Amino acid sequence: MKTLRDIGEDELIRRLIGLVPHDAGAAGPGDDCAVVDDGLPWLQLLKTDALVAGVHFLMDSPPRAVGWKAAARVVSDIAAMAGRPDRFLVTLALPGSLSVLWIEDFYRGIADCLAKYEAVLAGGETSSVPDGSALVISIAATGKVGREDLLLRSGAKIGDHIFVTGKLGGSLQGKHLDFTPRVEEAEWLARNFKPTAMMDLSDGLAKDLPRLASASHVGYRVDHNALPISQGCTIQQALSDGEDFELLFTVPQALKSPLVDAWPDQFPFLSLTEIGAIVAHKESDTLEGGWEHFS
Amino acid sequence: MKTLRDIGEDELIRRLIGLVPHDAGAAGPGDDCAVVDDGLPWLQLLKTDALVAGVHFLMDSPPRAVGWKAAARVVSDIAAMAGRPDRFLVTLALPGSLSVLWIEDFYRGIADCLAKYEAVLAGGETSSVPDGSALVISIAATGKVGREDLLLRSGAKIGDHIFVTGKLGGSLQGKHLDFTPRVEEAEWLARNFKPTAMMDLSDGLAKDLPRLASASHVGYRVDHNALPISQGCTIQQALSDGEDFELLFTVPQALKSPLVDAWPDQFPFLSLTEIGAIVAHKESDTLEGGWEHFS
Repeated sequence: MKTLRDIGEDELIRRLIGLVPHDAGAAGPGDDCAVVDDGLPWLQLLKTDALVAGVHFLMDSPPRAVGWKAAARVVSDIAAMAGRPDRFLVTLALPGSLSVLWIEDFYRGIADCLAKYEAVLAGGETSSVPDGSALVISIAATGKVGREDLLLRSGAKIGDHIFVTGKLGGSLQGKHLDFTPRVEEAEWLARNFKPTAMMDLSDGLAKDLPRLASASHVGYRVDHNALPISQGCTIQQALSDGEDFELLFTVPQALKSPLVDAWPDQFPFLSLTEIGAIVAHKESDTLEGGWEHFS
Repeated sequence: MKTLRDIGEDELIRRLIGLVPHDAGAAGPGDDCAVVDDGLPWLQLLKTDALVAGVHFLMDSPPRAVGWKAAARVVSDIAAMAGRPDRFLVTLALPGSLSVLWIEDFYRGIADCLAKYEAVLAGGETSSVPDGSALVISIAATGKVGREDLLLRSGAKIGDHIFVTGKLGGSLQGKHLDFTPRVEEAEWLARNFKPTAMMDLSDGLAKDLPRLASASHVGYRVDHNALPISQGCTIQQALSDGEDFELLFTVPQALKSPLVDAWPDQFPFLSLTEIGAIVAHKESDTLEGGWEHFS
């Protein structure tokens, strides 16, 4: 009998999506968020995410930082489409032995993130888990993005240049609990340079760039020596660690220089790096690594 | 050090809600769904819920029925406000040893429910859990309700009559995996009799009626001998088993007889029972029992 360990996360998702009625909206399962078009001046974004103790954080991590991370991961996905978050739903599956102080501090971390992005808690649910089971947090959120600003994974074209913000790798050295979703940067990019495709880096460039290329039906070439690597990391860690929560995006040739010129004035404390180019599918590099659930 | 077991679910929620920025909408944390008013002819409803193996279902239950339950619980909460569901987000935290067939059948159960209510899957997330941890499913959904139809928990008035649909108790004998959310009934009630307050029964009448009364700042009297009890159950089971997923609502004196007269023609296969009356807070009965997480 086949198990999830045998098929992996991407194949699992591929099988499940085919079984359920879908949204016929602008973008559905497979992009960073679902996009809902109710005929308004803005589009609504829907996102859900999960954090599991022992997988995404350790129980001896500072709970306030875990709470920040839980909410900021979702904000990062909304930013990846150039949107802003508005309402959050927090679902907690908790062991009865958990200390009240832990969960209160965790909630303060969620509050820090919501306050920073002017979002609010709209509801939640709590459940117990059996003794010995891991704590599971699931956060769902709605967001908004202007109709003209929406960026998808699926628009990259042959000849586009590939960029990333910030540094890659090193999440396990603590960065995964202390990152800033690129909300302002994404919105500015959408309004000024309209990237052809964008997503956030959550599972590592080696896992995420192929997803962007696949959604766009193109291939990619990456200059490994150009990768912006976090201090103390190897190239392979930059490709594979995951949880960078930086933006990965593509722009046409004509916009490359104007973008590179304009960026430092706008965001002097965040690096922007060209890491490669979009090519035809059959000429693509192959990247190995990245985070794999169930393996 | 205090644990969740020491304080219980309601006290936990009370503490957490105070820590986070809130929605200033029509209704927020504390009702069956959050209500979002974007100035449109309809209001948006937001709901999240969790199912945990070993708490809400057993792993040897038919997975398709578990999938139905996971989605139908959320539909029931949306129905409790007289709304209809539209988009679902499914978050799965799964052990790597889980069989692919199990999760595929589970998804077919979700699909059954979405198809019945003309809702769609808009997105999802999957994560692994550590070995030995329970499977956790979290489902979030959006729904819509007409501005005039919205029903809250908070409008019950002294002198109102209290009604429930269907039979209570017996969830553990299998009903918890095989129930029908009262979507049509709730919508019909809202449009024809505008209950003063409504909610769905998920934790047992003994737990839920006090919540409705508390939200309305009133008390209640329940005629135990009038309770519609599922075959083979005791009165205490009808009060405490939980997971009835029936409607609990209140109507003014003047509407009682017209409602009782109109119901059987409209819903000939579902009973409607008057179980008591709303009274002043200081004259309230006290109900004991109902489902308690972390105890």
